[in-house]
Amino acid sequence: MRDPKILLSAEEMPRQWYNLAADLPSPPPPPLGPDGQPVGPDALAPVFPMNLIEQEVCQDRWVDIPDGVLELLARWRPAPLRRAYALEKALKTPARIYYKDESVSPAGSHKPNTAVAQAWYNKEFGIERLCTETGAGQWGCALAYSCSLVGLECRVFMVKVSYEQKPFRKVMMETWGGSCVASPSTETETGRTIIGETPDSPGSLGIAISEAIEAAVTDPGGKTRYSLGSVLNHVLLHQTVIGLEAKTQLAKVGEKSPDVVIGCAGGGSNFAGIAFPFIADKINGAEIEIIPVEPEACPTLTRGPYAYDHGDIAEMTPLLAMYSLGHKFVPPTIHAGGLRYHGMAPLVSAAVDQGLADPRAIGQRQCYEAAVLFARTEGLIIAPETSHAVAAVIDEAEKAREEGREKTILFCLSGHGLLDLKGYEMYFAGDLENYPLPEEVLARSIAAMEGYPKP
Amino acid sequence: MRDPKILLSAEEMPRQWYNLAADLPSPPPPPLGPDGQPVGPDALAPVFPMNLIEQEVCQDRWVDIPDGVLELLARWRPAPLRRAYALEKALKTPARIYYKDESVSPAGSHKPNTAVAQAWYNKEFGIERLCTETGAGQWGCALAYSCSLVGLECRVFMVKVSYEQKPFRKVMMETWGGSCVASPSTETETGRTIIGETPDSPGSLGIAISEAIEAAVTDPGGKTRYSLGSVLNHVLLHQTVIGLEAKTQLAKVGEKSPDVVIGCAGGGSNFAGIAFPFIADKINGAEIEIIPVEPEACPTLTRGPYAYDHGDIAEMTPLLAMYSLGHKFVPPTIHAGGLRYHGMAPLVSAAVDQGLADPRAIGQRQCYEAAVLFARTEGLIIAPETSHAVAAVIDEAEKAREEGREKTILFCLSGHGLLDLKGYEMYFAGDLENYPLPEEVLARSIAAMEGYPKP
Repeated sequence: MRDPKILLSAEEMPRQWYNLAADLPSPPPPPLGPDGQPVGPDALAPVFPMNLIEQEVCQDRWVDIPDGVLELLARWRPAPLRRAYALEKALKTPARIYYKDESVSPAGSHKPNTAVAQAWYNKEFGIERLCTETGAGQWGCALAYSCSLVGLECRVFMVKVSYEQKPFRKVMMETWGGSCVASPSTETETGRTIIGETPDSPGSLGIAISEAIEAAVTDPGGKTRYSLGSVLNHVLLHQTVIGLEAKTQLAKVGEKSPDVVIGCAGGGSNFAGIAFPFIADKINGAEIEIIPVEPEACPTLTRGPYAYDHGDIAEMTPLLAMYSLGHKFVPPTIHAGGLRYHGMAPLVSAAVDQGLADPRAIGQRQCYEAAVLFARTEGLIIAPETSHAVAAVIDEAEKAREEGREKTILFCLSGHGLLDLKGYEMYFAGDLENYPLPEEVLARSIAAMEGYPKP
Repeated sequence: MRDPKILLSAEEMPRQWYNLAADLPSPPPPPLGPDGQPVGPDALAPVFPMNLIEQEVCQDRWVDIPDGVLELLARWRPAPLRRAYALEKALKTPARIYYKDESVSPAGSHKPNTAVAQAWYNKEFGIERLCTETGAGQWGCALAYSCSLVGLECRVFMVKVSYEQKPFRKVMMETWGGSCVASPSTETETGRTIIGETPDSPGSLGIAISEAIEAAVTDPGGKTRYSLGSVLNHVLLHQTVIGLEAKTQLAKVGEKSPDVVIGCAGGGSNFAGIAFPFIADKINGAEIEIIPVEPEACPTLTRGPYAYDHGDIAEMTPLLAMYSLGHKFVPPTIHAGGLRYHGMAPLVSAAVDQGLADPRAIGQRQCYEAAVLFARTEGLIIAPETSHAVAAVIDEAEKAREEGREKTILFCLSGHGLLDLKGYEMYFAGDLENYPLPEEVLARSIAAMEGYPKP
C-alpha cells in the first residue's frame, strides 16, 4: 500500500534550533534606536523577557531547545511530511512534490511552534501576562493556546476589520482562556488617539502592534510582556523545526536534497521555518532554488526597497533593516490577512538581499485556483496564505513537465483554511480582485522612509 | 521526553473490518418492509449498490478492506491515540485517559472512514453520482471530500436551518466539488409537498433523508445511489477501524484492556467504531464498561423504547429494530446537530438491549463545560457532539479519584469544533439550555410507532 505520509517519532524531533544569522555571508545590519545607534539588549527589556532578548541577538549556529519546550511541541510534532501524489498526477508532472503539514497543530497553523516557546520562556522569566496583536487571528489563537498550556494570561489586540469579519477567532481565543479586543481600542493611548481622529478606523496590523506594545510596557506591575508572531530573529529561529524535520523526513524516503523550496511570506516566519535549514546548504554550495511567495497586493520583497523602517505605524519599534513598502502602507483587504504586512523579517530580507532566495508575487485569484485544485486532489482545504505557496508549486511543477525534469519540490503548508472559508466563497462567486500595487501608491508609501539610515 | 501521542505506521492499519453482528448473543431483528416481512437485498438495489448491500446483510465476523479503500484511508490514517496527561492532571485522577483522535481527517471527523469506503464501492459498481443528506454538515463534507477522491458527483441535501446557520459547510462541500441545497428543496416531490404545506419549514434530518433517497431512486439513468453516514450495518462496519487501531495502540503502551470505553451516540457510528471491537471482548468475558453518551434533549437509548420504527419522516425507509423516540420526533436545536436523531443504529440498539452497553444522557451545558476544560488542558477544540463523550469521561475520571482506582478510560474524539464555534460563544454568554425531554412530549412522540411490529 502506498503511504503518502512520512512520519517521525517524537524521539526524532530536532533538539536544537538553527540560526541563519551565524551563516549569512554578510552579517545582517542591526536594529537602530531613535538616535540612529544600534539598539542594545537592555533597551528591549521592558518589551521582551531577557531570555528571549538573548536569543534575538544570539550569533550561535545552533540553539538548544529546552526540554520543557520540546514537551510542549510534542503535543502535535513532529508534523507530517506528505507526498502530493494526487496533485502530481493531476498536473502530469515528473516533479516529486512534498509538503510539510503545519496545519495539524491545535491552532491550525505553524504559529504555535514559536508561541509555545515564547510562552515557556516568559513563564520561566516570571512573567504573568502576554500582550500581542493579531491580524486574521492565526497568531492570536496560537498564543492563547500556548498561554493556556503554561499558565499565562493572554491579551490579544485584533485588527478591528478582522475582529468583525471573523468573530469565531475571538471565540477560539476565549475557549483557550485568552481575551481579545478590537483594535484600535480605548485601552491604550495609541488606540484612543486613533479613535479620536478616526472614529470608524478599521484598524491595521501596525496599529495593533503599537497597542500591544504599549499595553505591555505600561503595566505598572512589570509582569507583562509583549509577544510577536513573526519578523524577529527569535521567532524565525523557533520556526526552523519545520525545515529541520523536513530534512530528516526527506532523507527517510531517499531524497538527497530538494531542488526547490517554497513558502508563502508575510512577516516571514513560516518561510524562514521551512527555508533557513536549506539556505544553510545553499551557502555551503548546494543548488537549491529558494522561493518566498507574496501577494501582488503586498509585494514587499519583489517591489519594496531594502531599507531601514519601523515595524509598526506608531513608530514604537526600532528601525529594522528590511524590504519594506513603508510603515504607513495599508495593504488592500486580500483574504490572506497574514500576508498583509508592509515589511519583512530582517533575516529573510538579508537572505534575499544576499541572493540566497528569489521572491515572487502572485495575485489572489491564481492562488485560490491553486487552492481549489489542491483541495480536490490532496483533500486539504488550505489557508489563503498557504495558497500563495501552492500557486508557485504548481507553476514549478508545470515547468518541470515542460522541461521533462524530475525535480524535487518541497513546500510548507502553513495552515488550514477552515476559519477562512469566506475567500473560497468569493472565489466561486467570481468576486475576487488581485489588487496589483499601482506605481504611484508604491512611490508615496516608500516616501515614509525618507531620511532614514540605509542598511 | 514524554510523548502523549501513540502512533502507528500505515503498515499497522487493520486489513479487515469487524462485524459485531457475527458475535451478538442474539441475532439482531431484520429490517421489515411495508408488508411486515424482512426486506431482501433486491429491495434495496435502487437505493444502494449491491456490493454495499452485501455488506449490510453480511454475517461474517471479519470483512476484508479492499486495497483501494486502504489507500484512501492511508491519506490520514492510522489516527493518533493520545494520552490525556494534562486533563488527568487537572482532574487529579488516578485514571489513565486515552483518546482516539478522529479530528485529523481532512473533513475533521470520523465520517470519512465510511465515506471513502462507500464512494469507492459505488465507483466500483459503476455508479456516477451519490445523493445524501446532512444535518450539521459533517457528513456532507465527508462525502463531498470522498467523492472528489474517487471521481463521483456528490449532491447533498442539508437541513435548511443548518444550511442558513452554517454557510461555510456548503463552501467546504463546493471546494471539494460537491453541491449542496437546502432541504426541504423544490427538487423532490417530498420537498415540494412540505414547502407547499409549510413554506417556512426549517427542515429536519428525517426530511432531508427522504429527499436524498427520492433524488437517488428517481434518477432516470440509474447511475445515482444514496449514501447514509450512520445507522446502517455497513456504515458501522467501516467505522470499526477506530477501535481496532486503538487496540493495537493501547497494546503498544502496555495497556491490556480499557476498563471503560466511551463514545457519543447520535446515529451510532463513532460509538460503534470505537466500541464494537471491545464489545467483542466483553462478549468473550472481559470486564469492560461500554458507555454511549447522548444528549438529554434527544435521549434515544436512555428513554426511548426498543421498537420497530422508520429511519425517516416520510416513512421511505424499511422498519428498523432500534431504540427510537418515534420518527416524527423533532429534537430541540441543541448545538450537537449530529446527535439530533430520533433513532439509533440497529446494531448499537441490539447491543444495548442485550446488556452489552450502558447508555447515559447528559445536558449540553455540562458538555460545554467539559469541552472548555478539555481545550484548556489538552488544547483541542472539540465538536459539540464529542463534548458529550468528554463530559462522561470527566465523570468517570472523578469517580476513579473518589474510589482511588487506577482505571483505564478510552474514548473517541469524533471531530473538531472549528466549524461549530457558535455553541462555545453561547456557552460563554450563558445562553445555553439543556432541553430535557418532557414526559408528555415523549409519550406523544412514541405514539407515532403504535401498531408497528415489536422486535
